[in-house]
This record gives sequence, C-alpha cells and structure tokens, in this order.
Amino acid sequence: SSKPSFSCKEWILGVWKFAKEDINRVLYSLKMGFAVLLVSLLILCQAPYQVFGINIVWAILTVAIMFEYTVGATFGRGFNRAFGTLAAAILAIAIGELALSTGGIAEPIIIGVSIFIIGFVTSFIKLLPSFVPYESGFRIILFTYCLIIVFGYRMGSPFRTAMDRLYSIAIGGLIALTVNLFIFPIWAGEQLHKELVNNFNSVADALEECVKKYLEDDGSEHPEFSNTVMDEFPDEPAYKKCRSTLNSSAKLESLGNSAKWEPPHGRFQQFFYPWLEYVKVGAVLRYCAYEVMALHGILHSEIQAPYNLRITFQKEIQEATSDATELIRYLGKDICNMRRSLKTSLLKRVHSSTERLQRAIKVHSYLLTSANELHDNSSHTISSTSPDLSNQLVEPYNKCIEQSYNPPSQPNYGTTELQRGSYHEMMRKQSRSRLYSWPSREVEAFENEGGFSSNFIPRMQALQSTATLSLATFTSLLVEFVARLDRLVEAVENLSKVAKFKQEAL
Amino acid sequence: SSKPSFSCKEWILGVWKFAKEDINRVLYSLKMGFAVLLVSLLILCQAPYQVFGINIVWAILTVAIMFEYTVGATFGRGFNRAFGTLAAAILAIAIGELALSTGGIAEPIIIGVSIFIIGFVTSFIKLLPSFVPYESGFRIILFTYCLIIVFGYRMGSPFRTAMDRLYSIAIGGLIALTVNLFIFPIWAGEQLHKELVNNFNSVADALEECVKKYLEDDGSEHPEFSNTVMDEFPDEPAYKKCRSTLNSSAKLESLGNSAKWEPPHGRFQQFFYPWLEYVKVGAVLRYCAYEVMALHGILHSEIQAPYNLRITFQKEIQEATSDATELIRYLGKDICNMRRSLKTSLLKRVHSSTERLQRAIKVHSYLLTSANELHDNSSHTISSTSPDLSNQLVEPYNKCIEQSYNPPSQPNYGTTELQRGSYHEMMRKQSRSRLYSWPSREVEAFENEGGFSSNFIPRMQALQSTATLSLATFTSLLVEFVARLDRLVEAVENLSKVAKFKQEAL
Repeated sequence: SSKPSFSCKEWILGVWKFAKEDINRVLYSLKMGFAVLLVSLLILCQAPYQVFGINIVWAILTVAIMFEYTVGATFGRGFNRAFGTLAAAILAIAIGELALSTGGIAEPIIIGVSIFIIGFVTSFIKLLPSFVPYESGFRIILFTYCLIIVFGYRMGSPFRTAMDRLYSIAIGGLIALTVNLFIFPIWAGEQLHKELVNNFNSVADALEECVKKYLEDDGSEHPEFSNTVMDEFPDEPAYKKCRSTLNSSAKLESLGNSAKWEPPHGRFQQFFYPWLEYVKVGAVLRYCAYEVMALHGILHSEIQAPYNLRITFQKEIQEATSDATELIRYLGKDICNMRRSLKTSLLKRVHSSTERLQRAIKVHSYLLTSANELHDNSSHTISSTSPDLSNQLVEPYNKCIEQSYNPPSQPNYGTTELQRGSYHEMMRKQSRSRLYSWPSREVEAFENEGGFSSNFIPRMQALQSTATLSLATFTSLLVEFVARLDRLVEAVENLSKVAKFKQEAL
Repeated sequence: SSKPSFSCKEWILGVWKFAKEDINRVLYSLKMGFAVLLVSLLILCQAPYQVFGINIVWAILTVAIMFEYTVGATFGRGFNRAFGTLAAAILAIAIGELALSTGGIAEPIIIGVSIFIIGFVTSFIKLLPSFVPYESGFRIILFTYCLIIVFGYRMGSPFRTAMDRLYSIAIGGLIALTVNLFIFPIWAGEQLHKELVNNFNSVADALEECVKKYLEDDGSEHPEFSNTVMDEFPDEPAYKKCRSTLNSSAKLESLGNSAKWEPPHGRFQQFFYPWLEYVKVGAVLRYCAYEVMALHGILHSEIQAPYNLRITFQKEIQEATSDATELIRYLGKDICNMRRSLKTSLLKRVHSSTERLQRAIKVHSYLLTSANELHDNSSHTISSTSPDLSNQLVEPYNKCIEQSYNPPSQPNYGTTELQRGSYHEMMRKQSRSRLYSWPSREVEAFENEGGFSSNFIPRMQALQSTATLSLATFTSLLVEFVARLDRLVEAVENLSKVAKFKQEAL
C-alpha cells in the first residue's frame, strides 16, 4: 500500500524540482520539440515536399541524432555526422561505381565484400582509445555506407542516392544548429565556467564540513562503518558534492572540448578563448580535493584519536581551515567575476595559520607521546628510567605552552583547559573501549597467540599511539592541502592572465 | 622531419599491439562485419528482396545500432531498441489514425503538434538522472515516431509503415543477437570477472610500487611537482592502473548491468548469478584504493620525512606491505579460480605485521620528536631545561629499542645502524635544504614579516616536525589500509557464498 502513494505524486514533485533546478533543461526540451517540428513541416507542408521529396525524412533522423544540450556539443556532433556521412558517401560512390562497371554477378559480390570490410574496419577503429570520442562518427560511416550502396544497387545510381541523402542531412543539420544557436542558446563555455566555480565551492564546503565533523564528533554517535552503505554518508552533503568533483574530470573535459567549437558569446568575447585552461585549473583543484578525501577517510577511520585530544587543537585547526576555505572561495569568486586580483594577503594568512597549527602539533606531539608514555603505569620500559625526572622535564614545557597558546582574548579556552585536566583518564578510558573495534575479527586469535615480543610494549600502547597519530595524520593532510593551494593560486593566476580577466585596482 | 617518421609505422605498431592485447577486439570487429554482411545479403540477393522489399534497409540500421561488444550489452541495446520502437509505433499508429479520422486541414496540424510534444517529452525525460542509461531508447522513440507518422501521412496508412518497420527491425535485431551469441561470444560476465581480478592485482601492485618508491627515494631525484604534468607519473605504471581502478565504478556497473541480461554460460552455470555482488566487492576494493591514493599523495608531497628516517622503518613497512599485498593477491586469485578458502592465517599475519609497525612507530615517534627537540642547539625553549637530563632519559630507551629491533638474523641492519649514526646531521642538512621548497612563493614575505610569536619556537623546527610527521602519516594510512582489508575479506567471503564458489578442503 506504500507503493501507490509513492508512485505518482512524489515522482512528479521530483521531476518538478529537477526542472526548476535548472530551467535550461526545460528550454532544451522545448527547443528539441521545435526543431523536430520545423523539420517535419518540410514534409507535412505541400510546397517543400514537392521540392525535396520523401528523402527529406533523413533530415528528421539528423536532427534527432545531432541535437545536443549545448551549442558546442551540437557543433561537435554535427562535425561527426557531416564527416561520417561525407566519408561514407565518397567511399560508397567510388565502390558503387566500381561494382557497377564490373556488372553482372561480380557487382553484388564486390558490394558484399566491401560491406564486410567497412564493418570490420569501423568497428575496430572505434575501439582504439584515441578514437573513442568519435564513436558515433564511425557508426554513422558504417550505416550510411550500407544504406547508400544497398539503395544504390536496388534503386539505380549510388551517386544520386548519396546526393539526396547529403542535402537532406545538410538541411537537418542546419535546422538543428540554427534552433540550438539562436533560441536561448545553452553555451558549453558558460556551463564550464559555472561548473568550475561550483567545484571551488564544493571543495571548500567539503573541507569545512569534514573538519567540523572531526572536531564535533565525540565518538558516541560515530556510525559503524558498514559494508553496504560504505560509499554513502547521508549526513554529509558537501562530501558527496566533493566526490562528484573528483569524478568531474570527464565532464570538464567534454565541456572544454565542446566549448572550443563555440563562437565568442556572452562574457567570453575573445576569439580562441582558453577553455582548456579551465580544464587545467580543474585538474589542480582535483589534486587538492584528493587531500579532502584522505581527510574524510581519517574522519571515518576505525582508529580514532580521542575526542579530547582533537579538541585541544580545535582553535588552530579551525583557523587553518577557515583561512584555507576563504582562499578557495575567493579564488572561485574571482573566476566567477572574471576578475584578477592579488591573493598575497590571503595566502599569507593561510600560511601563517598553518604554521601556527604546525607549531602547536610540534609542541603537543612531544607532550602527548611522552605523556602517553610516562604517565602510563602499565609501561614496562619507562619504569626502568626515572619518571620523576621526566615529569620535571615536561612541566616547564607545559607552562610554556599555556602561556603562548592561551591569549586572553580567547573566552572559550577555559573549557578546553578544564577538559584537559581530566585528559589522561578520559583518554585511557576512551581508547580502551575503542581499541577492540580494531582488529575486529581477529582479536581473540591474537589474544591467545602471544605473538612477536608481546611483553616488550603492551599492544594497548601501540594502538593508543596509532590513535594519537591519527590526529597527526589529520593535521599533516591539512597542511599538505594548504601546500597544494600554492599551485592552485598559480593555476588560477595563469588562467586569468591567458583569459585576460580584468585587473582589479588595489 | 620527426613527424612523418612517427605517422605511420608507430601507429600501425600501436594498433597491432592493441589488437594483440585482447584478441576479442578483432573478433568483435569481424563479427560486426559478418553481421552487416548477412543483413545486406537480404537485399543483395534476389529471393529475400522479393519477399521483404526495400523496407529491409531498416534492418541494417538496427544491426549498426544494436551490435555491441558484449552479449549482455547487445541484449540491453536490443531491449532499448525494441521497447523504443514498439512504444513509438503504438503512439504513431494511435495518433496517426486519430489524425486521419479528422481529415482535411486538421490532420497535419495534429501530426505537427504531436511531434512537438513527443520531442519535448522524450528530450526532457532522458535528462532525468534515473533515465540517463536509456538515453538511446528515447532518441529511438523520437525519430521512429517522426518517421512512422510522417511516412504514414505521405505514403498511406501509418499502420502498414509501422508494421513494415517493425518486422524489418526484428530481423535486424535477430541477426545481431544470433551472430553475437553464437560466434565467439564475448560475455559481459566474463569481462566483469576478469576486470575485478585485475583490480585486485592493480591495487596490490600500486601499494607495492608506492611503498618501494617511498623507501627508495633519497630526495635527489625527487621530481618537481609541476603544474602541467601533475596528473601524470610516467615512471609509475601501477599507480596509473590503480587510478583507473578508482574510475572503474562506472565500468563495473555497466558490465554488471549487461551481465544480468546474459544466460548461464561458461563457468557461470547458475541462473541469476549474483553479478551485482561483484560490483559491491569492487566498491569495497575502491575504498581500499583511496588509501593507496593518499599514500601516493604523501610520496609526492612537498614536505617529506628525511630519507634516513624513512629507512629506519624500512623492515616493518616492507613486511606490513608485503603481507597486505599477498592477502590482496590471494583474494584476487580466489575470485579468479572461483574458489572459497580460509584467509584466517594470512589475515592474522597482516595484522601482526601491522601491529609490529605500529609498535615500531610508537617507540620511534617518541624518540624522534624528543631527539629532534633535545639535540637541536637552536632550540630556545629546551635550553631553559636541562639537556643533559633529557639525554639521560633518552639513552636507555635507545638501547632498549636497539635490543628489540635488532634481531641477529637481519644482515642489512648494520647499514641502517651506520646510517642512523650520522642521522641528526643528515636530517638537519636535508630539512634545511628542503624546507625552502615550502612555502615556495611566500618565503621571503614571511622572512620579513616576523609574524606570530616567531621567537617562541623557530619555524624551522615546526616544519621539521611536520616533515617527521609525514612519516607518521604514511604509516597511519598504511595501517588504515590494512584495517579496511577486513571489510574486503568479508565482502569476498560474501561473494563466494552467494555465488557458490567451491569450498577448498583444508
């Protein structure tokens, strides 16, 4: 009984939303309808039908095949179709005349053998990696060749058949291009421009979301990493967008290839506008996004740094993240507005906040590894050295850090301080309960086995250390992300130079 | 002058290699040639031509459109074509008869409006995400509808045109299916099976290659991370394969969808063979491969752990890696042979070697952070505490580690030991020369600025620490990779259960 209620209303709502999301989708469909209507008028009306004859039906086929979403793609398809038809026509005429001149029983044999060879060659070539984009062209060559030569054999001269077919296709192509170009044109270049800007925003969003979740997550609502829904994180919309950014290379490239066919239009009045630079910037951005994926991997990894440890670096991580996302959004905005501006101050801020994060990790990593080691009573190794000595060593350090990392302008630092007080107990408790989630299957087996030098350092500690290092990994990846931003800034600057974005006065 | 020498010979050699790589490619092309030859014989020979008439040319079009690489894809295409044609024919006959019954001036108007509506609806529906796979079906509906209704208007009853077209298409489809199914069939299921096994091997290869390069790389031949060739690492073939594994989700899915259409064949004699389980295993494997990508990112990141530091963990890293790759290859082999076996011992070995790596990192991470700190004369903070004391603290530790991590059965450990002797000097030298590669653009700006609490900890140290943490990151990701292998083993076991792989006797 739940099915019928789903079936109709929801579907229509979904379709409505899909249409409203991008009005171009409706425009494209209306244009397609208009184009096929136009071309069928050539047959439905008496006057053009008397001029062109029934062969004009090929024009319908051409419109249906050629009419693509964007102007550039339509031009590209048209090229494939024109080239394929022309090549097939020339071949068919040449071989048809040859077969005709031999006459008699040889004619169908020559035609048959030629069809087999054309079928073999076109099918093989279209498999070659460099010809895959022109797959439709080869299909067109094959069936156009067959149609022309077979029609020619049964209906008379292949030359006439070919010519009829050619002008019919030319008319269809002309109608498709005209409608696509002059009625609400959808430009591949414009789409590429928007897509790239969106990619910038989605990378920034995903980074922000990922870091926010990492700092928020207190372990209680950490969802079990499951087999089936592994690729889906329903509560992370930005991550999904970012993942689609990673898979957008094909989309950007095809848009770039389509855009090359387009005449200057809208804001892009320059001839030979450098569309392929957009694709390059997209590649550099993707390279940055890989780091976000790795960060996301750590967010959902099974070995986690304890929450309290993560919260200790909250301020530094948040600052580095917000500076980085600000820079990315600024770059995206610059591209969006086709503006060229200096990003030096932003870049400087990102670098200095990252450096602060690095310093904090530097100090705390020392503290944490040693604290971990020295305060743990179960440690066998350290008990042979003097723990008091080491405490003495750590203490002044601790103070030093608090002095420098506790500016009075930070109101919420008190809480962190408080939390850090019970830090060791918390961590030990947390990690003890967490450790057994990994290795999930074989823990009993290990327990019984004993294994390699198990009395040297308790395995609890080794895993604890890995858990702590998980935080280090997170921050390292964040730093690496920032390091890659340099390249991104360079790539965007290069784009704005080549595409002649207007310089902003400072 | 270099161009003409390229043009021909190399291209032919490349094509030859492409054909030899997979003989199915040649077979497919030959079959395609044979199929179009068969269908054109229906027109070229007198007897069938007299039976079917000129309408049989539609059969040629059908073969050219329907004939796909695999049996399953051909069935799928055939379904699209059959469904599209049938829907279009029914619509065209209904509306054609309606238009005919009104007669006079209303007939072409009804036909024109219906063409516009069909053009609009099919174009819009094919944009909907859930209908994208059936795009060709909607194209076929559109042009079949136009052709039948327009032909019907000009040539007489639409019913006859539609029927002529339908049987012609049925004959074409039958020929395409028969040739594809009975002459050297290329099964999508078989391809999917092979592709998945290959994915297992390429992930294992990429991990091995990445770790090998990480441990080999002495920094001298570290290639400059460049803007243009960033996505290409010519000396890393396995990485490229692994990246294509990441992008193989669409391929696996389309093969899985095609395989569902196929009857039981070859080794897969079970009805409703669980092809979609293959796709699921592929997804889990991809999830593991993300970690390899992250490892690769660290290998090529600009902030690097010094070579000597990396070499210190060589043994543990290599062992964990080789155990992990062995497990992956074993899983791949099991799938390849459709065998079901226990992986407990292999899994146990991977876990114990990973644990050893974790322990080593645990110990050394303490040593390294502190050594870094304590032995560095430029450190301002530490000089306020007693460096002798800390040295005392570290020394016994050092010995302890050497005892446990220096088994006499390890002949090449002596070198490592020697290298570690001059470790501190090396590292300081290396990091000093490396540090300035990051941040590459703004280093001077920082130098002049001074910035935030620059006299607290020298920024050199902060970066040094990041460099050291780079190693920790590398190993953390390796550990995370191993953690994900559990899921992979589970997924493979699930597959072998559902697909009824034969149990191997132990």
